[in-house]
Amino acid sequence: MNLDKLPTPSLILDRNCLQRNTEAMTARLKKHDVALRPHMKTAKSIEVARLALAGNFGGITVSTLEEARYFARNGITDIVYGVGIVPAKLDFLAEIQGKVGENALFSVILDNPGVARDVAARAQALGSSFEVLIELDCGGDRAGVPVGDAERLLAVAAGLQQGGGVALKGVMTHAGHSYHCHGKAEIESVAEQERAGLVWAADCLGAAGLPCDVVSGGSTPTAVFAKNLDGVSEMRPGVYMFGDVMQQEIGTCSGEDIVVTVLASVIGRGGRSGNEHILLDAGALALSKDRGADEFSPIAGFGLVFDVENRSFQGLSVSDAHQEHGLATGPSLPALEIGERVRIRPIHSCLTTAMYQRYHVVEGGRQVVAVWERTGGW
Amino acid sequence: MNLDKLPTPSLILDRNCLQRNTEAMTARLKKHDVALRPHMKTAKSIEVARLALAGNFGGITVSTLEEARYFARNGITDIVYGVGIVPAKLDFLAEIQGKVGENALFSVILDNPGVARDVAARAQALGSSFEVLIELDCGGDRAGVPVGDAERLLAVAAGLQQGGGVALKGVMTHAGHSYHCHGKAEIESVAEQERAGLVWAADCLGAAGLPCDVVSGGSTPTAVFAKNLDGVSEMRPGVYMFGDVMQQEIGTCSGEDIVVTVLASVIGRGGRSGNEHILLDAGALALSKDRGADEFSPIAGFGLVFDVENRSFQGLSVSDAHQEHGLATGPSLPALEIGERVRIRPIHSCLTTAMYQRYHVVEGGRQVVAVWERTGGW
Repeated sequence: MNLDKLPTPSLILDRNCLQRNTEAMTARLKKHDVALRPHMKTAKSIEVARLALAGNFGGITVSTLEEARYFARNGITDIVYGVGIVPAKLDFLAEIQGKVGENALFSVILDNPGVARDVAARAQALGSSFEVLIELDCGGDRAGVPVGDAERLLAVAAGLQQGGGVALKGVMTHAGHSYHCHGKAEIESVAEQERAGLVWAADCLGAAGLPCDVVSGGSTPTAVFAKNLDGVSEMRPGVYMFGDVMQQEIGTCSGEDIVVTVLASVIGRGGRSGNEHILLDAGALALSKDRGADEFSPIAGFGLVFDVENRSFQGLSVSDAHQEHGLATGPSLPALEIGERVRIRPIHSCLTTAMYQRYHVVEGGRQVVAVWERTGGW
Repeated sequence: MNLDKLPTPSLILDRNCLQRNTEAMTARLKKHDVALRPHMKTAKSIEVARLALAGNFGGITVSTLEEARYFARNGITDIVYGVGIVPAKLDFLAEIQGKVGENALFSVILDNPGVARDVAARAQALGSSFEVLIELDCGGDRAGVPVGDAERLLAVAAGLQQGGGVALKGVMTHAGHSYHCHGKAEIESVAEQERAGLVWAADCLGAAGLPCDVVSGGSTPTAVFAKNLDGVSEMRPGVYMFGDVMQQEIGTCSGEDIVVTVLASVIGRGGRSGNEHILLDAGALALSKDRGADEFSPIAGFGLVFDVENRSFQGLSVSDAHQEHGLATGPSLPALEIGERVRIRPIHSCLTTAMYQRYHVVEGGRQVVAVWERTGGW
């Protein structure tokens, strides 16, 4: 099978490019003497995880309980579930842990004293044990104990002491605001804010005689541009594996570093003149409706269109996306025939890849050398 | 199992509400003496299809070849594939048709003379036969022979005569621009534009001595508000089954008519004050990033938040959506505890439901009475 025959839309993954990206991040963090705990929320594939883990300690981050189940079943047993836990979800994690066996090391995150108490009690009732990282808000304004709020940080830690099923292991944060930075200097500054917040929290816990072995940062932009990671024990970037137009705009990758593309067919030329746009069979479902790149490059729309060999069409992008129709426009329309194929670089690879059950793997060329299944849902 | 125990996020479908919606559309089109060929692109479920087909002739519309395969395998054999065909895709349709047997009636759509020729030739080479509807552009500016362009219409029809594998059956259009109408009068006007375009094309073909048994319109708004459907033989609405916030804004349904909701858990309260938003475990993947309702109601964000009994929280909506986090804000934040559950009405149910593999079916209450699988992908 090759890209000229594969049904469209299909999700293509370039293995060579992926390996360059995973090796680069591994090398980058080794220089900082910081462990890499890749976030599998983007890739959701054991084959991708194996590449990302090469040369690293073997722990991962996940964003759903389904990912935890999938990766544990595939032999990865050191897993941080990186979305705030609620007690009811421990039952499912305990069930997975029971199946994987005693060497499973599952960590959960939380930021609230009451939840800490309830999680400790629930874990004990289940007869399970979990490691806990306290989530910090280092400026992303999403979740976490705000950096500087020592009272709340220590109250969360105290909550964990009230049940026997959990062990405080440290602190974590995700500098999500790095996605809105314009330029390297801004990202460097957010990376330092992330590091400083983590170190503040580790110091707070240490001063109170509490353990803090794990000091965990996140985000691809901060992992790429951090100048100093002193005091940080691990980083949890995810989208660096695949890149996307958004990451290209932020500056963490080049266009050639984008690993996944959507293979689509030209199914028409439309508009009143019959020549106002090229109609593709990749629309809102095949690409997602993420417009995250608008902030940087409104013309990127729902994805940038390239030919099957990844050559540019000079600014052609999917400017409108209906459920199964993508309308490609640009400064000029290339002479593409109906039935010809194109490849679309996604705006946000985490969301685009989520629409597919598998990757069709190439190694630079048109030949599909493997099919990698991926998990999804919850 | 009930809504208090189900893992979150999950997709909930209210069967009673669905049945009201499907019966209403069936009755509405019967009054016009127009056949209903429901579009299954939203529901992608045989159980939903059975309800939508009750009292109707049994034909459906699909948006992907995978839907065609799924519904054919489940016994539905009169299927219009409602996205412009390219010759290479006939191979897959022929394969399905071969499995279903001789009574399978697959129709494809196209709008281009060259494609008509190539499709006719490819069908003949495959030894298959397909019915063809010529797609018209009645104002949506997406695909189709522009209404009024008799030369192109007849050229497409002529292309079909050049191979033995296809039979011209008629014309079809989708008044997608009805989604941007404000108010009933505007939709009535688009519905008339859709009808008039179809009738023009049917007359053109008739005058040339060509067959046009099928005169097929589309879109939920035009099916709901059309005053006159004279000359139209069938309508292909889809989203009317489920409704969504977008359809509520357009006026085709009320909030209580929305059939599908996303069950989510409160996982935190966030922001610098720890009280600026309610954090839900339904984010960009659980809801989709469709912002289609912005044009009508920017506060709707990525979905409107209700309690488990579908009672309003007075304007609470998901105003920001990260991959697995939804940030709910509103005029005031309700006193929801971490771990409590809410239900989110989707902005665009076609895209939200696509993120799930199954519906958890309720009948008004909290009890899950059935689980209906759905298909997805391509």
